[in-house]
Amino acid sequence: MSLKRYLPILDWGARYDRDTATSDAVAAVIVTIMLIPQSLAYAMLAGLPPEVGLYASIAPLVLYAVFGTSRALAVGPVAVLSLMTAAAVGQVAAQGTPEYWGAAIALALMSGLMLTAMGLLRLGFMANFLSHPVISGFITASGIIIAASQLKHILGVKAGGHNLAEVLASLAQTIGDANPITAVIGVSVAAFLFWARKRLKPLLIAKGLRPRLADVIAKAGPVMAVAASTLAVWGLGLHERGVAIVGAIPSGLPPLALPSLDPALWSSLAVSALLISVVGFVESVSVAQTLAAKRRQRIVPDQELIGLGAANIGAAFTGGFPVTGGFARSVVNFDAGAETPAAGAFTAVGILLAALLLTPLLYFLPVATLAATIIVAVLSLVDLGSLRRTWAYSRPDFAAQLATIALTLGFGVEAGILAGVGLSIFLHLYTSSRPHVAVLGLVPGSEHFRNIRRHDVVTAPHVLMMRIDESLYFANARFLEDHVADAVAADPALRHVVLMCSAVNEIDASALESLEAIDQRLKAAGLRLHLSEVKGPVMDRLKRTDFLDHLSGDVFLTQYDAFHALAPAIADAARRAERRDTARPPAQAAQ
Amino acid sequence: MSLKRYLPILDWGARYDRDTATSDAVAAVIVTIMLIPQSLAYAMLAGLPPEVGLYASIAPLVLYAVFGTSRALAVGPVAVLSLMTAAAVGQVAAQGTPEYWGAAIALALMSGLMLTAMGLLRLGFMANFLSHPVISGFITASGIIIAASQLKHILGVKAGGHNLAEVLASLAQTIGDANPITAVIGVSVAAFLFWARKRLKPLLIAKGLRPRLADVIAKAGPVMAVAASTLAVWGLGLHERGVAIVGAIPSGLPPLALPSLDPALWSSLAVSALLISVVGFVESVSVAQTLAAKRRQRIVPDQELIGLGAANIGAAFTGGFPVTGGFARSVVNFDAGAETPAAGAFTAVGILLAALLLTPLLYFLPVATLAATIIVAVLSLVDLGSLRRTWAYSRPDFAAQLATIALTLGFGVEAGILAGVGLSIFLHLYTSSRPHVAVLGLVPGSEHFRNIRRHDVVTAPHVLMMRIDESLYFANARFLEDHVADAVAADPALRHVVLMCSAVNEIDASALESLEAIDQRLKAAGLRLHLSEVKGPVMDRLKRTDFLDHLSGDVFLTQYDAFHALAPAIADAARRAERRDTARPPAQAAQ
Repeated sequence: MSLKRYLPILDWGARYDRDTATSDAVAAVIVTIMLIPQSLAYAMLAGLPPEVGLYASIAPLVLYAVFGTSRALAVGPVAVLSLMTAAAVGQVAAQGTPEYWGAAIALALMSGLMLTAMGLLRLGFMANFLSHPVISGFITASGIIIAASQLKHILGVKAGGHNLAEVLASLAQTIGDANPITAVIGVSVAAFLFWARKRLKPLLIAKGLRPRLADVIAKAGPVMAVAASTLAVWGLGLHERGVAIVGAIPSGLPPLALPSLDPALWSSLAVSALLISVVGFVESVSVAQTLAAKRRQRIVPDQELIGLGAANIGAAFTGGFPVTGGFARSVVNFDAGAETPAAGAFTAVGILLAALLLTPLLYFLPVATLAATIIVAVLSLVDLGSLRRTWAYSRPDFAAQLATIALTLGFGVEAGILAGVGLSIFLHLYTSSRPHVAVLGLVPGSEHFRNIRRHDVVTAPHVLMMRIDESLYFANARFLEDHVADAVAADPALRHVVLMCSAVNEIDASALESLEAIDQRLKAAGLRLHLSEVKGPVMDRLKRTDFLDHLSGDVFLTQYDAFHALAPAIADAARRAERRDTARPPAQAAQ
Repeated sequence: MSLKRYLPILDWGARYDRDTATSDAVAAVIVTIMLIPQSLAYAMLAGLPPEVGLYASIAPLVLYAVFGTSRALAVGPVAVLSLMTAAAVGQVAAQGTPEYWGAAIALALMSGLMLTAMGLLRLGFMANFLSHPVISGFITASGIIIAASQLKHILGVKAGGHNLAEVLASLAQTIGDANPITAVIGVSVAAFLFWARKRLKPLLIAKGLRPRLADVIAKAGPVMAVAASTLAVWGLGLHERGVAIVGAIPSGLPPLALPSLDPALWSSLAVSALLISVVGFVESVSVAQTLAAKRRQRIVPDQELIGLGAANIGAAFTGGFPVTGGFARSVVNFDAGAETPAAGAFTAVGILLAALLLTPLLYFLPVATLAATIIVAVLSLVDLGSLRRTWAYSRPDFAAQLATIALTLGFGVEAGILAGVGLSIFLHLYTSSRPHVAVLGLVPGSEHFRNIRRHDVVTAPHVLMMRIDESLYFANARFLEDHVADAVAADPALRHVVLMCSAVNEIDASALESLEAIDQRLKAAGLRLHLSEVKGPVMDRLKRTDFLDHLSGDVFLTQYDAFHALAPAIADAARRAERRDTARPPAQAAQ
């Protein structure tokens, strides 16, 4: 039972049969075709030799198949993690050196160990601190940076820069040196890929192809572009006219090697590894969950951490770099009929064959083609409309999202994501530190209590009834003290304060002390504090303290019980009155 | 109106009369007597010359009287801020140098400017991030450190150390050099002060004194100790036998001087100044609020920030160091009958007279007496019982409190308080990231829904009804997704999921996206998602999005409406059944 928990392969593997194998194999062929150009391109984006992309698409897929819980997730290099890898590794080594590759390998190992540890310690909740607007802003900004960084390959110039402004300035300076043939290749491949993405499938279907076959052909667009542009360079000898090509890619098995364990390197990469782990996990688990739900299956997030951790450890020991579940390729895998993680293992075999046999064919592959592949892939990540939707729904979320985008573009991926996380936590605490408080009155003819600002309700001059729409904890404990103190100081006729706790899901130690302080202060001023509608779990904990023994007032089961006990005549009369519409016009109700 | 807001003196000053002045003056005399030895002692604790303590007790009191809103708060040097000052300034300058004093002055100016800015920008809520257990743990640990650091003066040895372990180790090494006469003075003063604190007042009352006079005499214990030990040293010439004395204190007005504006100094003190500001504000405002409530007055926290800010700026320009409202002396001020902040201004006059006339009399004051005064004062801050109470009430709060105490003792005040704040925020997010979720059924014979684990209730096999006891936001958005996915995957008979939102006070953008994802996944699996009892403000915001247009199910006003619509026969039958006690025995109800 416990072994099955940590080795999901024992579960689905026991029932594996020929039909399932056929489905998985078909899906694997399609994913392999899609993954070959992606692997090469994302390795280039990470600043690594192209074969590293293939290495990162073999062992990780097999290990995820053993440890992962998603039936359809396709693991491998992805754009955002490649960018983060380049940013992290670029700080400790120069691109093109063995140290750079070694640092990328160490990053994969650290990330793999962190993910595994988080999984074993059930720390998957840490990923929750990345709010959706922050992650969406981060991915949008990453997409923009990635696309901008690839423009130099499309133009065939040597530009640099560490943030968006620098990249664009450097491009503007060097654009005069652009190689026209490279630019023609880059732009036409990009145009073809955009077209294939949007129009090819409908066109093929219109021509009479079966939708599924049309889909597969459309998804093979990058492979066609790779083949066509490679043939063009080879046939026309364009590499002799300044078109940058991939060149010799060593063919053979991935190198088995022990990653660097240098403590100085590890400590300088630690924060990056953590961010890469969390971003990779968040992206992967949301894809996995979406696909699992379609077939009413389930994934286990903590075991997903272990699966991704094993995949990254595998990448590290076979010369790869950080990997995670990719969105587009997982959807393709699912649509192509993958039924178990074995499809991933079959894909690994496909990539292995490519690494053994295909690399000589890629000698003349133009770098501009890979850059165009990346640009087309990442522009689908850019979702500026999300800013507008977030603005419409929630200002604090919008602020966090905008800050993430601005800081990622201006100061790089790590600054952006850290600022986004910090700001969303701060804004959440700020919002809940000033909760909505309604002063209540009885709706005539009922036992319901509503906000006196919004409804024409019955109150008693010596009883203040308040409902706090938030759990009480340290961030709003003082707010409550201030609020009650102000209300009581403003109205000398008051004798009773009733806090209606129906929306209070928790009272922490700070809030308990605040309630004690409020009670003592009210007592000193000749008033009594009462509570009503306290939830079961909250009451259980209050009973473990002496708060209820000292409380100047009572705890009432319902708000009406409280009102009836403190102002019986008014409550009775209002209860017996005729029920009527008490809502005030909105203008009056506004604060 | 607005001027009165920022200058509360215009409010109470307009109605100031002779009776009030008499009450204030009497209180001021008593507070002055209490404050003189405290000022000297806390200056010594901060590593500053004793007269600096007097300087910090003149201008700040006058400025607080102009800008503060508390009628009874007594401002001046306090133990915890003195310790924090010593820790901060000790990192940039050596004790005893003019640079050290200059840095303490700069710290007061920075803290004053920060407090004022926080007040003008209404940022008082930032103080809320210090939870009560953290602040209580911090003060306990500070009290222990302060007491330990004063033992060397009691023993007359030269010990050092930067944390508790070092201080105690250094004391153990040097205890052989202890000066017996100093130790006798220190121990007997400490014993006398403990005795005076606990027993003197009851004794005097028993002897027939009026309680108020007895109280004043008891409070004057430190002054008596100062006078007696000074006379003893002078009369017996003990300073020639190795007893350390305060020596020559320059008499005169506080020095008016521009504080250092060195940017390097400011940036190295910035974090310390912020922590000192927040800790000082939190302590002061809770004392002020407690005392104000006793007379049904109110304080304005944001204006309190301005009042304390002005006090610290005043301290900086007159050679002082960071100040705030002190607990013990404010209570004395209140009990002695202070009616307005003018009492503070009168106290300032008293301290000014002391600085002008009294300092020659303090030449023979033994340092051990001041150390004993500090020890007796701070040991009342040590509240280890708080740990036990917090443990009983809340494990997360206990963890934050224990971490604060341990890190403050082990690594100093700043590490301790920062770790405490970080940990309490983290634990709050962690707790609310795994909210209580109840699966609901209908209580027969009613329209109430309760937890199926705790009550014997009616459910329908194709309808899952869940109540989430927490606002939905980024930290628990994924939890909800996982929870619904698991529940649905486990039960193939389900056709409807109803989320009862009565405890949901907010749905942020992340949670909205999670709800959309849940809805889409349920739809893909042939289920429908419904909501019930959504609060008005939450509904208002949902209506601004297209979520409700796409929702696969409906939004019901009440949970019963939902159940009745989805399972009419079961709901009708259960509604008409006889009402009975449905609570299950606790053993069965436990998870």
